[in-house]
Amino acid sequence: MSENTSDQNIIYIGRKPVMSYVLAVITYFNTPDAKEVVLKARGRAITTAVDVAEITRRRFMDKIKVTKIDIGTEEMTGEDERTRAVSTMEITLSV
Amino acid sequence: MSENTSDQNIIYIGRKPVMSYVLAVITYFNTPDAKEVVLKARGRAITTAVDVAEITRRRFMDKIKVTKIDIGTEEMTGEDERTRAVSTMEITLSV
Repeated sequence: MSENTSDQNIIYIGRKPVMSYVLAVITYFNTPDAKEVVLKARGRAITTAVDVAEITRRRFMDKIKVTKIDIGTEEMTGEDERTRAVSTMEITLSV
Repeated sequence: MSENTSDQNIIYIGRKPVMSYVLAVITYFNTPDAKEVVLKARGRAITTAVDVAEITRRRFMDKIKVTKIDIGTEEMTGEDERTRAVSTMEITLSV
């Protein structure tokens, strides 16, 4: 879990199976004084982030709430040196 | 555009190209008294909905703001009669 929730309780959502992120969220909220975690995703992983929030809340921890959702855009430079914009999302879960 | 924004200024995001939804949003906000539109998406289309909001706001209409984002879950019954949960998202854009 340390690799996923290092600085400021952030879990970066990528291409792993949804349940591995759900497990990371549950593990985090089972540590003492855990109050809030932020799921960060971009591009196609945005859908996964929403799935993680919904599955955790509905199936495992009905006490947690979605307290904030932000969307944004990041400029990324690909291997061909061209920059392209990718959408980002941050979902804050709190107890 | 009538097919997209019928009841209560809702635009349902599906599998069309992102720019066709961006155009629907721009067209809507160019009608008199247009104040608010809701983008609704589920499953994989959630990423597209975020792209539509971000592209419209950044490239075309810097006056519109994301005023609300909700996520949820819908139970769907497939052809095999089994129900499965799918994540949903609603993004409200306002001038």
